[in-house]
Amino acid sequence: TMPDLIQQSLCIFGTGDLGRSLGHRLFQSGYRVVYGSRRPDSCGPVPQGAQVLNHAEAAQSSRIIFLCINREHYSFLQALAPQLNGKVLVDVSNNPEKDMFPEANAVYLQRLLPEAYVVKALNTLSAWGLQNGPSDANRQTFICGDSAEAKQAVSEVCTRLGLLVLDRGGVGASRELEDFPLQLFPMWKLPMRIAVGLSGAFFFYLLIRDVIYTYVYEGKDVSFRILVSLANKVFPIVSLIMLALCYLPGVMAALLQLHRGTKYRRFPDWLDRWMLCRKQMGLVALALASLHVLYTLIIPIRYYVRYRIGALKNQTTEFFNILAWRTDSYYSMGVLGFALFILLGITSLPSVSNALSWREFSFIQSKLGYVTLFLCTLHGYLYGWDKFLHLYSYKWYTLPGYMLSLVVPTVVLGLKLLLLLPCVDRRLTRIRRGWEHTPQDPSVQKLLI
Amino acid sequence: TMPDLIQQSLCIFGTGDLGRSLGHRLFQSGYRVVYGSRRPDSCGPVPQGAQVLNHAEAAQSSRIIFLCINREHYSFLQALAPQLNGKVLVDVSNNPEKDMFPEANAVYLQRLLPEAYVVKALNTLSAWGLQNGPSDANRQTFICGDSAEAKQAVSEVCTRLGLLVLDRGGVGASRELEDFPLQLFPMWKLPMRIAVGLSGAFFFYLLIRDVIYTYVYEGKDVSFRILVSLANKVFPIVSLIMLALCYLPGVMAALLQLHRGTKYRRFPDWLDRWMLCRKQMGLVALALASLHVLYTLIIPIRYYVRYRIGALKNQTTEFFNILAWRTDSYYSMGVLGFALFILLGITSLPSVSNALSWREFSFIQSKLGYVTLFLCTLHGYLYGWDKFLHLYSYKWYTLPGYMLSLVVPTVVLGLKLLLLLPCVDRRLTRIRRGWEHTPQDPSVQKLLI
Amino acid sequence: TMPDLIQQSLCIFGTGDLGRSLGHRLFQSGYRVVYGSRRPDSCGPVPQGAQVLNHAEAAQSSRIIFLCINREHYSFLQALAPQLNGKVLVDVSNNPEKDMFPEANAVYLQRLLPEAYVVKALNTLSAWGLQNGPSDANRQTFICGDSAEAKQAVSEVCTRLGLLVLDRGGVGASRELEDFPLQLFPMWKLPMRIAVGLSGAFFFYLLIRDVIYTYVYEGKDVSFRILVSLANKVFPIVSLIMLALCYLPGVMAALLQLHRGTKYRRFPDWLDRWMLCRKQMGLVALALASLHVLYTLIIPIRYYVRYRIGALKNQTTEFFNILAWRTDSYYSMGVLGFALFILLGITSLPSVSNALSWREFSFIQSKLGYVTLFLCTLHGYLYGWDKFLHLYSYKWYTLPGYMLSLVVPTVVLGLKLLLLLPCVDRRLTRIRRGWEHTPQDPSVQKLLI
Repeated sequence: TMPDLIQQSLCIFGTGDLGRSLGHRLFQSGYRVVYGSRRPDSCGPVPQGAQVLNHAEAAQSSRIIFLCINREHYSFLQALAPQLNGKVLVDVSNNPEKDMFPEANAVYLQRLLPEAYVVKALNTLSAWGLQNGPSDANRQTFICGDSAEAKQAVSEVCTRLGLLVLDRGGVGASRELEDFPLQLFPMWKLPMRIAVGLSGAFFFYLLIRDVIYTYVYEGKDVSFRILVSLANKVFPIVSLIMLALCYLPGVMAALLQLHRGTKYRRFPDWLDRWMLCRKQMGLVALALASLHVLYTLIIPIRYYVRYRIGALKNQTTEFFNILAWRTDSYYSMGVLGFALFILLGITSLPSVSNALSWREFSFIQSKLGYVTLFLCTLHGYLYGWDKFLHLYSYKWYTLPGYMLSLVVPTVVLGLKLLLLLPCVDRRLTRIRRGWEHTPQDPSVQKLLI
Repeated sequence: TMPDLIQQSLCIFGTGDLGRSLGHRLFQSGYRVVYGSRRPDSCGPVPQGAQVLNHAEAAQSSRIIFLCINREHYSFLQALAPQLNGKVLVDVSNNPEKDMFPEANAVYLQRLLPEAYVVKALNTLSAWGLQNGPSDANRQTFICGDSAEAKQAVSEVCTRLGLLVLDRGGVGASRELEDFPLQLFPMWKLPMRIAVGLSGAFFFYLLIRDVIYTYVYEGKDVSFRILVSLANKVFPIVSLIMLALCYLPGVMAALLQLHRGTKYRRFPDWLDRWMLCRKQMGLVALALASLHVLYTLIIPIRYYVRYRIGALKNQTTEFFNILAWRTDSYYSMGVLGFALFILLGITSLPSVSNALSWREFSFIQSKLGYVTLFLCTLHGYLYGWDKFLHLYSYKWYTLPGYMLSLVVPTVVLGLKLLLLLPCVDRRLTRIRRGWEHTPQDPSVQKLLI
Repeated sequence: TMPDLIQQSLCIFGTGDLGRSLGHRLFQSGYRVVYGSRRPDSCGPVPQGAQVLNHAEAAQSSRIIFLCINREHYSFLQALAPQLNGKVLVDVSNNPEKDMFPEANAVYLQRLLPEAYVVKALNTLSAWGLQNGPSDANRQTFICGDSAEAKQAVSEVCTRLGLLVLDRGGVGASRELEDFPLQLFPMWKLPMRIAVGLSGAFFFYLLIRDVIYTYVYEGKDVSFRILVSLANKVFPIVSLIMLALCYLPGVMAALLQLHRGTKYRRFPDWLDRWMLCRKQMGLVALALASLHVLYTLIIPIRYYVRYRIGALKNQTTEFFNILAWRTDSYYSMGVLGFALFILLGITSLPSVSNALSWREFSFIQSKLGYVTLFLCTLHGYLYGWDKFLHLYSYKWYTLPGYMLSLVVPTVVLGLKLLLLLPCVDRRLTRIRRGWEHTPQDPSVQKLLI
């Protein structure tokens, strides 16, 4: 990038790894960089072209000072308060863990130096991203601080570094900014635990029913079935249950509102938490459904299947229409349900959901979502067809896996049908528009929206 | 979130559902909330910690006033004009339907109170989204208004609520903001109607040709074929026709420009409308093509197919190379065409198309798009192979479905080839660079880009 | 869109194609447009309602002047310097090729007219996009310039045109803005060349091994295998090699840092270049893997395969468990590896990677990425199973294709395992935190982060 016509000076306190990476990038973007260090003469290598002075002198060289020092050294800065008055202090720090301190670093700093303007920025970038410029997950920085003018000055520098700047408000938002780099998919933990738990449970259940039962009663070793046949039962079962679990909290919340007669009382904590991770639960269900589709499509090229088809070829001579209807219908429902499921997944992508209005998003995720759940549940029932009538399905008095998978979805669809009855729906809509079971002053009606 | 060090006061007029949701959220973000109500003493429950005063007193407490009242009460506000001078009035209203009033609500308000600064914001969020914070389709708000400084003040509040603020210009843009929450996929209506219409038409056409003809002439009931076999003919036929309909308007527009000798005359309305929904038409075609792929891949696991393979196994003894070439070639073309089709779909995602330059986007959607259309059409021709030579294809003197599907694509590709001829292409490029059939003053050449 | 209450005047220099498109759009958005032209009386058609004056008069009508003239005419503007002082000049120009001139157009302009405020904007939009409003790849504009106030004024106009404005810094960034519309997937050139090169090489290699060898030794013409069977060997081989090539530079960079004992020395240019296009290389590998999956899934419906299954059906009578384990295991690894590969692709989408923190992005792309590479390599080894023991695999003393494909991935996984050894990992982590082989002054430890 070309050097700017008017070279601005920027000051960095701290000559550690972060300070050096940042100084390198600022220099590349055309700024003059002045470091402030305790021991200017022996502070280690700095990017070429940068000056190293003591803190007091360095602070005078620029209006903006980047603090690349540990939080534990912020108290030393108090001694420099006179030189730092009116300066813009950019807090770039991160903590190794969440909730290490009662206050966020930037809030603490602002408290120590009330006459300076503290701005939190750049802390979500990795040192590599800082040094080498924008790359995936390193294209934007959050910024927060109490002074709009200080934030503007820091924004201009960030923009010149090629970053998109997102303003998050006052310095009180710095806790959120400091937590962000420490998170590792926080909303996905609960859905993943549910998925792993259900998968493990059903895997052992079906292992006993399929492999061990066959070994005990027929003496055949069919353990190879674990890799594909068993997986292709566990995945669709868990996927269908989790898809139903996406829609169950909505139904429960509606029933709760109907029961209480108001929408203004808070939901129980567990229901709140459940409702917040519905999207992640749906995406995990979609991933499992996709695995199920792939495992189903490779069925004809498996040696085991080709052998069985070869062995059976000599037997069947008559064509049963009802069997053709049966397989075609549940495959058809499966394909249509999966296609809608993929559409739900696509509209969950950030850029697509941001382009939709609330009405459009709700139409797809809610209305089309229930259609998806319905088609996938129907797919399960048609797959079962008349298996429930035959005794061989109940090995050791246990239910087949597919029957267990149909319980939660059927309950959810049943309750949703109940909520769609005109009398129930009318009452729920009134509650959601602000009506409450306790009658209010009719003169207020005028101002209600 | 942490309370801010300096607590700012905000005023809300209206204690209905929207007013309460907004007040609750502002309070959670650290603001003091003061309500203005006609009857401060009996206005119903408000979020705890909020004060309720009459309108005139409430207006004095804050520079920014959120109007959560119905449009029909805006005229009452005129009586408060003295107190509202110089205030920032945030119009949060929505109408139940489009075009209910000649003026947009915010424009009407600004007309009633010319001394106040009207800013339209937050109207695209659902009440639930407003109360509970950012969620999908609720992460951003549009803002518009004539005063940049008033918009800045409102932006800061929205930012503190965790929303991304998108400025849409002056108060004249509020019609667009008020229409946004009412829309339900406006650009998708025409493509969906075309898809449903074509699908229905071809379904009945093929029903007669396949199922009814077989029943009449062979007495066999093959109605089970409706679910998968028939679907797997209707979907690819409609998909290919709609993909060709994506490229037909571009070709027609080019021919129109060539005929008229200029690019500055407007296109007919129907052509404009068609060109605006090309992307949605292509995505519907892609969805149908994906269903076609899924239905094709489950062919080998259908009972009907396995039965037929078993019955036929005893017959064929000789291997025909030409049959191997035939099936492999049209499958190969189908796979490649579908893969490119998926690539077109991926580049239609908002975040991907925003990251591309115009030249890159045009390369993929236009050049690679025509390659996709070509491969899919070739797939259709290779599928047909020599069926057109056999009499049995023409049941009751009707053409097979695949022949009908190849008409539009062949026409489009033929016209595009015509447009690629050097003489035609040269003339069209000149017209697109601003040349017109009527010669201009050569001295102007100097200033042309 | 509604006309604004206060009609602002804007000036455009230049009545060529770009000037006319821009003027048309500004007029539609409610502005009064005044053109400046050398020959106001005979300059050709301008949008209705626009005035045409000479440059000096036109410049007085508005603070903002859009320059829609060629760079070669910028020097003429110097004569107008008195009238242009203090004006905001918006440079909309593009050059036909990169690096045509030593300075960027906007920098050159600012140098010619130092008293004016030059702002670069709108140059990334196509003329069609400019005239007809926002469409894909035409929704945003980059802006750069030295004066924040001038940029603000131009931003407001762009916002009213419905564009999102992205600030890129000072006028020194205009080179980047001028290069953007000229690029055609610059980061994809190297990966595409590698993909095409490897595909071509392996295609001919396997053509000789499969088709020509069979013809020479058995006299059979199996050339139909080119379309699907051969493709379905070339695609997975190249895909696996390229996926390994994504992770190889990371491993090499780590070994280089270990060898040098520091992270502050620059990598060789070729390594830098390789590391910058890793994402594109991975996406090309994903595309080839997807083609491999599609070609594999259509295997059972190919005539060639059905014939072979029919012929073989009479032979096998015994069921080999080991064969069932073999096929099921490598299909299972393939499905799981492909599913993870798709997840890597989804997180590469701009909107998804922007929503992730650096830690989350690194977890998926790095940790899960190596798991993907491992599963796909295992898929290859299980596919081979015991083929390497059989002489028939080595036709004309050449190795089977799959063996060649496993070389690079095995090397990468081996080196990565080496880097995971505790002693090696500890040293590398220290180097990455700023430690260097040359000991530093221990008193600096206090300021290191």
